[in-house]
Amino acid sequence: MRLAELSRRSGVSTATIKYYLREGLLPPGRQVNATTAEYDEGHLRRLRLVRAMMQVGRLPVAKVREVLGHVDDESLGSTIRLGAAPWALPQVPEPDEDDAWVRAARREVEALLGRLGWENAMRVSTISPAYRSLVVAVAAFRRLGYEWGAEQLAPYAELMYRTAVRDLDNLETLPPGAERVEFAVLGAILNEPALRALHRLAQEEETARRYGFE
Amino acid sequence: MRLAELSRRSGVSTATIKYYLREGLLPPGRQVNATTAEYDEGHLRRLRLVRAMMQVGRLPVAKVREVLGHVDDESLGSTIRLGAAPWALPQVPEPDEDDAWVRAARREVEALLGRLGWENAMRVSTISPAYRSLVVAVAAFRRLGYEWGAEQLAPYAELMYRTAVRDLDNLETLPPGAERVEFAVLGAILNEPALRALHRLAQEEETARRYGFE
Repeated sequence: MRLAELSRRSGVSTATIKYYLREGLLPPGRQVNATTAEYDEGHLRRLRLVRAMMQVGRLPVAKVREVLGHVDDESLGSTIRLGAAPWALPQVPEPDEDDAWVRAARREVEALLGRLGWENAMRVSTISPAYRSLVVAVAAFRRLGYEWGAEQLAPYAELMYRTAVRDLDNLETLPPGAERVEFAVLGAILNEPALRALHRLAQEEETARRYGFE
Repeated sequence: MRLAELSRRSGVSTATIKYYLREGLLPPGRQVNATTAEYDEGHLRRLRLVRAMMQVGRLPVAKVREVLGHVDDESLGSTIRLGAAPWALPQVPEPDEDDAWVRAARREVEALLGRLGWENAMRVSTISPAYRSLVVAVAAFRRLGYEWGAEQLAPYAELMYRTAVRDLDNLETLPPGAERVEFAVLGAILNEPALRALHRLAQEEETARRYGFE
C-alpha cells in the first residue's frame, strides 16, 4: 500500500508517519520509484504499536526505539524478548539498601518467592525492575506500621500468577515471533491499566455488596 | 506526645510537620500552653497517611486535602468513604463518545458487567473513574485490531474480583471507621503498585518456565 492508504488504515496522519520514518521508529517502505514507496501489513502493525507506546503509554521517542530494538532482535531468547517491554517502562528508583525497612522488605520478598517456588523470578531478582518495585512497595507499607510481608502477599501472588498464565495463553494464540513480542508490549501498556480498572471496579462491587450504598 | 516525639516516631521532620499543620493536612494538637501542643496516636497515623499520599502516591496538596475530607466525613456511607481514595487518584480523561471504538468498547464493558452480575458496578457506571478507564483501555486495544472484549476480559475480571475480596477481608481485620478508610487509601496507593509488581514477576516466572532463558 502507498503512504496515503497506510495513513487511512492506521488513522495516523501522513505527517506523523513521516516523522516516525525519520526517527527510525518505522522501517522504510520498499522504494518503487524516486517519489513512491510501498508499505505492507508489517508497517501497519508497527505503526499501531508505536502509537500505543507513544500515545497511551506516553513513552518518549528514545524509549520507544529501545523497546523496538528488543522486539526486532531475533538473536535474543523468547523470555528476554517478551520481557523487554515491561523492563523498558518507567520504573521505581533503586531502593535504599541502608534503610532497615528496605532490608526487611527484601527478606519478606525473598521468603515469598521461596514459598511460592518461583525459581526463575529468584534467578533474575538482582536485575528485575518488578522485584525492585515489590521491595519498595512492601517497605512503604511496613514503614507505616502495617504487617505486610510474605504471608499477606502470598494469596495475592497466587492470583497474579493465574493472571500471568492467562496472559501467556492469550499470547500463544498468536503466531510466534514478532507478533507475540508486539502483543507482549501492548499487554504491558494497555492491559495493565485494564486490569487496574477491573480491580477497582471489583472493589466497588464488593464494597457495595458488603456495606450497601446508604 | 510533643512535636519532637511525633517527629521521631513518624520519621517526618518537625519543619514538615509544621507545614502539614499550616496546610490543614494534620489537625492541630491539643494546646497545653502558649508554646506547646500535645499529639496522639491519631496524629501519628494521619501523618503517615499524608506522607504516603504525598511521597509514594505523589498527590498534590489539594488532592491530599480532598481525600482527607472524605476520610473524615462520617456522614458518608462506608461504600463512599472506602471508595474515596481511588476516585481521587489521577484518572484517564473522559472517553470520546463520538468515537466508534469507544462506543464499541462501552458495549463490551456493559456486556461484561452483565455477564458477571456486577450490579453495583453497573449502577455507578456513569460516574465511576474505574469504569471509564476500562472503556478507554478496551477501546485502545480494539483500535489496534485486537479482539478484546467481554469474552477476553471475563476471566481477568474473575481474578480481580477474588483480589478485591481479599482486599476487603484484609480491611475487616481493622476496627471500623477512620482506620479502615485510611487503610483503603493506602491500598490504592501502595498495594496497587505491589500487585502490578507481583503480576510482572509472575509473568517473568511463567515466561521462563515456558520458554527458558536460552
